[in-house]
Amino acid sequence: MNDKHARDYSKEQLVRMKEEAAKQLEIYASMGLALDMSRGKPSQKQLDLSNPLLTCLSEEAYRSRDGVDCRNYGGLEGLPEMKEIFADILRVSTDEIIVGGNASLTMMFDNIASHMLSGAKDSAPWSTQGKIKFLCPSPGYDRHFAICEYFGIEMITIRQTVDGPDMDTVEELVANDPSIKGIWCVPRYSNPEGIIYSNEVVLRLANMKTAAADFRIYWDNAYGIHHFYGSYNQMPNILTECEKAGHGDRVYMFFSFSKISFGGASVACVASSKSNIEYNKKRMSVQSIGPDKINQLRHVHFFKNVTSIRDHMAKHAALLRPKFQLVVERLEAELGSLGIAKWNDPQGGYFISFYGSKGTAKRIVALCKEAGLTMTPAGATYPYGVDPDDSHIRIAPSYPEQDELSRALDVFCAAVKVASFEAMM
Amino acid sequence: MNDKHARDYSKEQLVRMKEEAAKQLEIYASMGLALDMSRGKPSQKQLDLSNPLLTCLSEEAYRSRDGVDCRNYGGLEGLPEMKEIFADILRVSTDEIIVGGNASLTMMFDNIASHMLSGAKDSAPWSTQGKIKFLCPSPGYDRHFAICEYFGIEMITIRQTVDGPDMDTVEELVANDPSIKGIWCVPRYSNPEGIIYSNEVVLRLANMKTAAADFRIYWDNAYGIHHFYGSYNQMPNILTECEKAGHGDRVYMFFSFSKISFGGASVACVASSKSNIEYNKKRMSVQSIGPDKINQLRHVHFFKNVTSIRDHMAKHAALLRPKFQLVVERLEAELGSLGIAKWNDPQGGYFISFYGSKGTAKRIVALCKEAGLTMTPAGATYPYGVDPDDSHIRIAPSYPEQDELSRALDVFCAAVKVASFEAMM
Repeated sequence: MNDKHARDYSKEQLVRMKEEAAKQLEIYASMGLALDMSRGKPSQKQLDLSNPLLTCLSEEAYRSRDGVDCRNYGGLEGLPEMKEIFADILRVSTDEIIVGGNASLTMMFDNIASHMLSGAKDSAPWSTQGKIKFLCPSPGYDRHFAICEYFGIEMITIRQTVDGPDMDTVEELVANDPSIKGIWCVPRYSNPEGIIYSNEVVLRLANMKTAAADFRIYWDNAYGIHHFYGSYNQMPNILTECEKAGHGDRVYMFFSFSKISFGGASVACVASSKSNIEYNKKRMSVQSIGPDKINQLRHVHFFKNVTSIRDHMAKHAALLRPKFQLVVERLEAELGSLGIAKWNDPQGGYFISFYGSKGTAKRIVALCKEAGLTMTPAGATYPYGVDPDDSHIRIAPSYPEQDELSRALDVFCAAVKVASFEAMM
Repeated sequence: MNDKHARDYSKEQLVRMKEEAAKQLEIYASMGLALDMSRGKPSQKQLDLSNPLLTCLSEEAYRSRDGVDCRNYGGLEGLPEMKEIFADILRVSTDEIIVGGNASLTMMFDNIASHMLSGAKDSAPWSTQGKIKFLCPSPGYDRHFAICEYFGIEMITIRQTVDGPDMDTVEELVANDPSIKGIWCVPRYSNPEGIIYSNEVVLRLANMKTAAADFRIYWDNAYGIHHFYGSYNQMPNILTECEKAGHGDRVYMFFSFSKISFGGASVACVASSKSNIEYNKKRMSVQSIGPDKINQLRHVHFFKNVTSIRDHMAKHAALLRPKFQLVVERLEAELGSLGIAKWNDPQGGYFISFYGSKGTAKRIVALCKEAGLTMTPAGATYPYGVDPDDSHIRIAPSYPEQDELSRALDVFCAAVKVASFEAMM
């Protein structure tokens, strides 16, 4: 943002500028737009990249590498060749992996549900330990917070810095409060900040002392290989670091192909220490006869290995990068000089965090809605849906194509101006 | 069974007959057989019937009837056209259905997990109501009982009659004990008895008074359309009957394509009252962004409607019927005259129940194992794995082809003779 700020304008100028923006919004509203920047969904062109998944099996090709008939029951942990792909991506061993169904969210929910009812390995059920709490770096992923809310787990908001969660606060809290049982982490291109955890943050998470022996890190690596640009730093492996620190059971890593192949029909996994995996398999052997191995086989046939997956991700990046650039350029052009907002410029992932003036986020989202643009509800990225500053808005530019996105940004910037100038008058 | 019984033989004759059978078993053991009649898995030929599922979509055909891109996120309840198929099969309305993932077992586990933690609709969490209990008509499905055992739900064994559970006992127990929260039912071609609930049993289950307002019937209709012969009686609809009786929320019906299409890659559903469905959707909206719609679309494309599904089931029947006939004929030929065993002759489903002399089932299964034939562990079909008579063995003839099945029956009948004659000496 540059020097000429809205606060330097006179009241009359602000009124005029607000009226201009409001007039723009009225015009958009009259156009019957139906725009959406609310959810991090892959676009149709991104989904097209994986269309061979629809046809890559034949009536003869239904056997795994080991000759298993994938059509039939069984194989609770997933196909070995699918495990290998996940293990390579997450840099863990295949016996630290369980392959699941079409969504990692369901595996996270299941994991927490079972910890509530039966406890973590070697611990009492969380539901019998009184009020339990999770640390929630915020803004964060609304669906993580919804899981906590569903189970009545108290959420403690942790400030998200550019390097990850504010570790001074995290360390102090977990060292002293045994009712804190978990922390949600999206370590790379976090939802919605787009930040990348620093090496120091990863190491501190692995090494910190926790009052609760059954404290768990929920490491949702949803965007772990979703880079926009070729170069990126390798992060220390949280599972390895936890093991080195003598806390091998501390972390559950989650990953899926939802934003690699098909959002609705992908393959997910959980990775953890061998002992946690064995512990979870006991539950799963009661819960399931096995995941959909045919869909795993499709993924194995089409994606083959980590190298070809990286090539595939470069195609996603080629589609996503211009959209993110468009958002950042347009925000800069429309709002950059006004000093009424700031935003992130992430190098991967699915979201841009936008911070308006205090107390304007709800109003901006409402104005967008009136003009035909759906945004994620203001506050949704905070525990209990409450942004203390009413300032943050999550922008999800992946789904609309360039022209729609451009129009959505017209609406959004006009709404930001109206709400901000109103607040200044 | 006819008149000439083993008990009419002299001790010497029994010894000789036992030695003959034991010699047979030794010969089989020396052959290095690897036979399996332990699980109700579809055979390769049955799976082949649904092979078009592997190829029925194209790179252009990924949209639902309403134009939804099934590759992307969303659609928590399932595709409307998939719901219609389930609704037609179960004779309920589409708003009484939620479509799930690849297995109904997982939906049952989830349902009970959530009832433990959060309660049934309008009830306190089952985990906070002290010791709770389920009624378990036995012999029954081992995986149902495993779910109860996992959650620490006390299982009460109920005698399975030829018409379904012994309703006098069921009615008396549920009327007086508010800690009884559920009953497991496999109403048609029950696992493993192969019996069909009588109309009276269905109506009594729907109408009975229960001390627990949050009592639930888990109606696992796994073999609901899995008839061996063309004609069969329609059963009163348990959901309709519960609603008529003013207990609309009493029943959860489960159904899947696991034994219609692919055991490992099918589509499952739960059906219940609209209010129960709404109640469960609240949990599911936290647990999942949606099921695998692409696999639903495959099922819709291939199976189309109930009429074509019935034709498809006739093909399954043509493969299964001769196997069941072979088992029953061979048991009759080998053991029918000896008065040492009895068995059922089901008209559909996946299992034959075999009852040996008291105290012989474990020994028979062990002898089979030594000779290279895997059977379901004796007792597995009873709560806690304990058959009070040590008499029942579940025979699953679906997976082996005729020649293997024939050899497996050689082994089995020889093992039955050895164990029975031993017990008589």
